[in-house]
Amino acid sequence: MKLNCDLGESYGIWQIGRDDAVMPHIDMANIACGFHASDPDVMAKTIQSALEHDVQIGAHPGYDDKKGFGRRSIAHQPDELKHLFIYQIGAMRGMCQLFGTDISYVKPHGALYNDMMANQAVFQTLIEAMAKARIGVPLMILARKDNQAYQKIAKEHGVELLFEAFADRAYNADGQLVARTVNGSVYHDAQQIIAQVTQLVQSGTLTTIDGETLALHADTVCVHGDNDQSVATIAQLRKALS
Amino acid sequence: MKLNCDLGESYGIWQIGRDDAVMPHIDMANIACGFHASDPDVMAKTIQSALEHDVQIGAHPGYDDKKGFGRRSIAHQPDELKHLFIYQIGAMRGMCQLFGTDISYVKPHGALYNDMMANQAVFQTLIEAMAKARIGVPLMILARKDNQAYQKIAKEHGVELLFEAFADRAYNADGQLVARTVNGSVYHDAQQIIAQVTQLVQSGTLTTIDGETLALHADTVCVHGDNDQSVATIAQLRKALS
Amino acid sequence: MKLNCDLGESYGIWQIGRDDAVMPHIDMANIACGFHASDPDVMAKTIQSALEHDVQIGAHPGYDDKKGFGRRSIAHQPDELKHLFIYQIGAMRGMCQLFGTDISYVKPHGALYNDMMANQAVFQTLIEAMAKARIGVPLMILARKDNQAYQKIAKEHGVELLFEAFADRAYNADGQLVARTVNGSVYHDAQQIIAQVTQLVQSGTLTTIDGETLALHADTVCVHGDNDQSVATIAQLRKALS
Amino acid sequence: MKLNCDLGESYGIWQIGRDDAVMPHIDMANIACGFHASDPDVMAKTIQSALEHDVQIGAHPGYDDKKGFGRRSIAHQPDELKHLFIYQIGAMRGMCQLFGTDISYVKPHGALYNDMMANQAVFQTLIEAMAKARIGVPLMILARKDNQAYQKIAKEHGVELLFEAFADRAYNADGQLVARTVNGSVYHDAQQIIAQVTQLVQSGTLTTIDGETLALHADTVCVHGDNDQSVATIAQLRKALS
Repeated sequence: MKLNCDLGESYGIWQIGRDDAVMPHIDMANIACGFHASDPDVMAKTIQSALEHDVQIGAHPGYDDKKGFGRRSIAHQPDELKHLFIYQIGAMRGMCQLFGTDISYVKPHGALYNDMMANQAVFQTLIEAMAKARIGVPLMILARKDNQAYQKIAKEHGVELLFEAFADRAYNADGQLVARTVNGSVYHDAQQIIAQVTQLVQSGTLTTIDGETLALHADTVCVHGDNDQSVATIAQLRKALS
Repeated sequence: MKLNCDLGESYGIWQIGRDDAVMPHIDMANIACGFHASDPDVMAKTIQSALEHDVQIGAHPGYDDKKGFGRRSIAHQPDELKHLFIYQIGAMRGMCQLFGTDISYVKPHGALYNDMMANQAVFQTLIEAMAKARIGVPLMILARKDNQAYQKIAKEHGVELLFEAFADRAYNADGQLVARTVNGSVYHDAQQIIAQVTQLVQSGTLTTIDGETLALHADTVCVHGDNDQSVATIAQLRKALS
Repeated sequence: MKLNCDLGESYGIWQIGRDDAVMPHIDMANIACGFHASDPDVMAKTIQSALEHDVQIGAHPGYDDKKGFGRRSIAHQPDELKHLFIYQIGAMRGMCQLFGTDISYVKPHGALYNDMMANQAVFQTLIEAMAKARIGVPLMILARKDNQAYQKIAKEHGVELLFEAFADRAYNADGQLVARTVNGSVYHDAQQIIAQVTQLVQSGTLTTIDGETLALHADTVCVHGDNDQSVATIAQLRKALS
Repeated sequence: MKLNCDLGESYGIWQIGRDDAVMPHIDMANIACGFHASDPDVMAKTIQSALEHDVQIGAHPGYDDKKGFGRRSIAHQPDELKHLFIYQIGAMRGMCQLFGTDISYVKPHGALYNDMMANQAVFQTLIEAMAKARIGVPLMILARKDNQAYQKIAKEHGVELLFEAFADRAYNADGQLVARTVNGSVYHDAQQIIAQVTQLVQSGTLTTIDGETLALHADTVCVHGDNDQSVATIAQLRKALS
């Protein structure tokens, strides 16, 4: 079970995230591409750090909205969405090439990720773009109880998918994440996080917020490293997994 | 003798240039990459138009300054310059890939171009970036009386150069462009422009502003298509060349 | 009946609109404030032009989205909306002060205007901001069949309203603009436009798309000056009104 | 002797500076205006914090360059500079008005500040802008051994000046700051900083890096609050002064 984490979200003089502390413990780094966060210098630094720690690099494109950190949905025509998406992937690939490496996958960020999971047409647009531009690496999306419709579209276009579960989020019985506004939706306790991931690895299931058992196929688990505590949790989780 | 022209410099709803009228008459389109002008949608449209008219695509990166249209020099550390440059080339390549094509060369824009020609260290930085990222296409620079120093650096790094002359600019005896502030520095008359290019093609020389003959090696000639008159001139020049 | 028009929407080197041709014929210029369009230089030029032609200046703030020209709705918390709004009004006032003048009114742009008319909470937020910052000039909104709810909110906060009708748009019987997707929703014929405004001036009514008579109170009529034809129509309309 | 400090330099989700810890100990807050840093929300938060701690608000405009944090000089025509400057002051005044307050002074940021002190023409342009827009508050500039030329220009235009010394920077005998590249140019020791300010308050002099005594008129001292140590130093300095 691979650990993935959003990294490289600083911008200019503005530092955010505990990238240096997180990188040694993860397998996959979702690196911002300069639209919702980051800039060419931050990308270069983050790619080099990933290389040093033998971490896979994922292009992590988002809406063009630094003020809102890509967390606000912005309406796009399908073609506009393709262009926004492929531009950022191309930019990230170029930066990777500068350091003799390449991306291993693509994972949309923030509102673009949510729009992709909430709206099949957005997902289809992204898949079509990846197929048309022959990106050649998988797209990472949210593992849900039933991903057949998404798998079908991806397969038709010859695009591979990776499914991610969340280490620190509670799930509903229908396989959706419990809304952040609900009490207990986000786990802060390291043991709870480790237990959820361990169960997922050992039995391919999660225990929902209502205590039910939910079968979920996940290739990777998303972790967060914003502060000292969460970084420590990632380190513990890594140790528990190995 | 190939004709190259800056194109794809619109942004959002703001249209600039006579791209549709110019594209049929040129060989090489220098397409802005989203930093000093353009956006992913304008890039897509311009790439498709170049493909329709069998025009080579050049990545045309500039400083990150839409307000100043990349015409203001902005100080960068060498690494920052490399990242700014490669990011834009990568983004353009990604966009090209979406339409099954690729860039054929790179030509810096505006102040970045001027800084490259005025400051050998800037040129060396760009060459190093292209070599390190194995861009694999030539860099277009200004044809001057003596380009040995630039050729030496490029050769050492295995980067090919393309030299461009200006169809509508007067030259000094030392092979530099006459400053725009000088009377007669810019040609507006179609016959004068055609005469300069024809002489360059037939004898590899130009007639300087002082009436002297200047030997100049040029692979391509830069033309401008901002208004009806200049577009008509390009069409006449194309006819005269063929 | 005053004519108002959106102006000052250029940005950097990118020119848009026929500002110089339109300004002599209108009474009120809605000038972009640098977020969805314009920059401090364009604002300065447009303010000076308005002064020369004795045209009232309106601050025309929009969402912070040059790529989308402020036409895409972007979610904001109420406080964020107040800050975005007041920042732009303040900037415009500062620019006016540089030329010894001031704004006479405020009119939101594009998606912000639409959100204000579609969502009473957005309207209330803008009114609260204007009251709290003691802007002291009216807010221009869409004249509708029934504006009582909006008038009540404005009155409670001591903010004056101006109502605008559209010279070139068809109306439904319920007082709403006919959607642009409907055939006949936008008038291109000068006589039709002049007839609609003349009727509004003489009888305070419009003829709807279904041929009914609609009573509508309007302080001003919005005109558009994007091309030669529309500019000529404005000139004719101005002549007809005087 | 008033203490001034740059504050409100966060942007979107990106936090920078120890604003909450610094505000209680200073007299004047130089608040970024949204071009080199900040946004309307950060400005609102910082203005409110200044009001709570009875701290004077200074508009702190800079070049339009978030990526470079306003630290890179960007060439502007005089009129462009006036517009850039007045736009930001107006925006800050608007935001202040929302909270029932106003700016007390203006202090340019970073490269704009340096350009103003290195180039009398830039200073004159800013002074002319302030006079023409009747800003009505003083401009803060660097206290130097001889400021007569600057005082003459300001006086001619009826603009008041405030002079600031640096608490944590060494001075040369000619009254210029010792370049940051020189060993000992920046003081990190609280006692050294307190000693410099105390001497300035008591005798209107500084001890230069060569041990000479330099007479310097200063209305205010600039302090920095980037980390725990520097914040503690400000608190100690405040205590020493009172």
